[in-house]
Amino acid sequence: MKVERYPENPLVKPSDVPPSRPDFEVVCAFNAGVARYRDEIILLMRVAERAISDDRVHRVPILKCEHGKEACVEIYEFKKADPMLDFKDPRIIITPEGVFLTTISHLRVARSKDGRNFVVDPKPAIFPDRPSEIYGIEDPRITEIAGVYYITYKGVAPTGISTSLAVTTDFVNFERKGIILCPENLDVCIFPEKVNGRYVALHRPIPRSFGQPNMWIAYSPDLISWGDHYFLMGVQADSWDSGRIGGGTIPIKTEHGWLEIYHGATAGDFYCLGAVLLDLDEPHRVIARGRDPIMAPEAPYETCGFVPNVIFTCGAVVDDDRLSLYYGAADMVVAAADMSISGIVEHLLSG
Amino acid sequence: MKVERYPENPLVKPSDVPPSRPDFEVVCAFNAGVARYRDEIILLMRVAERAISDDRVHRVPILKCEHGKEACVEIYEFKKADPMLDFKDPRIIITPEGVFLTTISHLRVARSKDGRNFVVDPKPAIFPDRPSEIYGIEDPRITEIAGVYYITYKGVAPTGISTSLAVTTDFVNFERKGIILCPENLDVCIFPEKVNGRYVALHRPIPRSFGQPNMWIAYSPDLISWGDHYFLMGVQADSWDSGRIGGGTIPIKTEHGWLEIYHGATAGDFYCLGAVLLDLDEPHRVIARGRDPIMAPEAPYETCGFVPNVIFTCGAVVDDDRLSLYYGAADMVVAAADMSISGIVEHLLSG
Repeated sequence: MKVERYPENPLVKPSDVPPSRPDFEVVCAFNAGVARYRDEIILLMRVAERAISDDRVHRVPILKCEHGKEACVEIYEFKKADPMLDFKDPRIIITPEGVFLTTISHLRVARSKDGRNFVVDPKPAIFPDRPSEIYGIEDPRITEIAGVYYITYKGVAPTGISTSLAVTTDFVNFERKGIILCPENLDVCIFPEKVNGRYVALHRPIPRSFGQPNMWIAYSPDLISWGDHYFLMGVQADSWDSGRIGGGTIPIKTEHGWLEIYHGATAGDFYCLGAVLLDLDEPHRVIARGRDPIMAPEAPYETCGFVPNVIFTCGAVVDDDRLSLYYGAADMVVAAADMSISGIVEHLLSG
Repeated sequence: MKVERYPENPLVKPSDVPPSRPDFEVVCAFNAGVARYRDEIILLMRVAERAISDDRVHRVPILKCEHGKEACVEIYEFKKADPMLDFKDPRIIITPEGVFLTTISHLRVARSKDGRNFVVDPKPAIFPDRPSEIYGIEDPRITEIAGVYYITYKGVAPTGISTSLAVTTDFVNFERKGIILCPENLDVCIFPEKVNGRYVALHRPIPRSFGQPNMWIAYSPDLISWGDHYFLMGVQADSWDSGRIGGGTIPIKTEHGWLEIYHGATAGDFYCLGAVLLDLDEPHRVIARGRDPIMAPEAPYETCGFVPNVIFTCGAVVDDDRLSLYYGAADMVVAAADMSISGIVEHLLSG
């Protein structure tokens, strides 16, 4: 199965993105939801920003939400020399009071006519603004249904990681619809059409007592309220997707079933992409799941970056049989690759 | 505030409950959902059964679900002398292959004319029968809306702890409606009427990465699909409810707000009951939360049993100002106590 990475990769780098305020620096622009809007391809990227630190202190941005006041970002300072603090993982600081994220993410639009050369909007599209988003918002997926774009995204907060919905028709104005899946839940991909009269979504709860970070599926009458949940598929022991799995692209309708490109990772955080085919009429039934990844980190921008060896997709563009898959690479940049939809489906059905 | 425990307590004991099969013994009958049906008070109890073991082996019942076949209970054997097995907690066996529950629970009806003397149905009302219920079903809450009884209950399985819905109009026939809240979620209490055109429920997700076992609230158009989630209230550090909290009774409408009796526990599993008042029109807003429990384990059947020092309510009966609270005691028996609704509300509002 042929995967053609774009020679222009990475398509968007942190240095292409203006920070949201002068004392911030953009460290990552990645994991973009994807949509066609008019004659453009839109990326709705996760942009992670850091408060500019110095030799002495790490500065960490935290959203402050007080009832009746507008939310605003505050800066916490952590002394680099403090032996009680653990800075090993670049994404977090572990303190005696709890875990803090080193960055805060918002969602930012980038626009392109050709799907390869993107211009980044100067300002955030959606910025965290409520208690469920205190540590930022991340990893959007965009589903177009009848000219309306439904955006699911992850909100991270001390009370948990939840998934919220926002809606737009123009990628300028975004209406927030609140939390649609409560903690801990992420990687929510809404199908592009109703199935047997109901909306459908893949989701990925992370339970504490029993169960792994597995993929589930749910149904909805209105895109806000979700129920009739089914366990869809689980992590596979001793495999590339043994640690966790989660939906990636919006499911793609083919004559053989719904094709989903999902991510899987080992416990050691080596992230690949795999494919699965779901029943057209009862998408909670798996028809075929690939044993091996369809794509693994190998390009330099995938193996080196903010978090090495991560490829993670939140969306794709379909053009007849060509799937143009956009993905975050090394948790730092946006890249893309082309592949054949029928090629993936044949591979799955023959496996 | 006066709490009058019934002199007849415990009202139902394991020995009052016939096992579901001859090689099982009933070890616990507790945590009952409560409803008025015709001239009776119904308890829908969680009945925990154990496969009868001997000196040599612990026998553990596990539901076996194979696609296309009827689910059935299988017996696993664990040698008591095996040094790799941990039997310390009576509820679980910890093995190198994972954690097993020592018992499997089903739901059983008990009926009473006076709310004190109960007759237990000879057979289970709802028995686990699907993959999300492999380790059993537990802790039902019953909400009557227009003559229909909606039962939420917890399903425990290797894929996680989820909450499902069943419906009855006669407490003989029960219709399953599937999973309404995905893992990890339990303690789901549906309000007895719509608020501003939507159904409302308390729920208690348990996230893995961030967040505590806190109480949340959600809205629904149809009782199956739930969304517009809000964090409602959290555990309180250094308090009787520092470890976890969760909804108990169906919320009770008063002129001052929705009164909810909830459980709280320390990290050491000392379970008490507390009270909170929620806004009538916007029940995701807390009006008043009691600092101290309204009831703590003190009677012998509360301090000694399968798990000592647990009181846990799943329902109550309201008769004017009198709240007859039914509760599981020491994870083993059903007990009840009367208290004054206005007394609790005044206590909350004065605190």
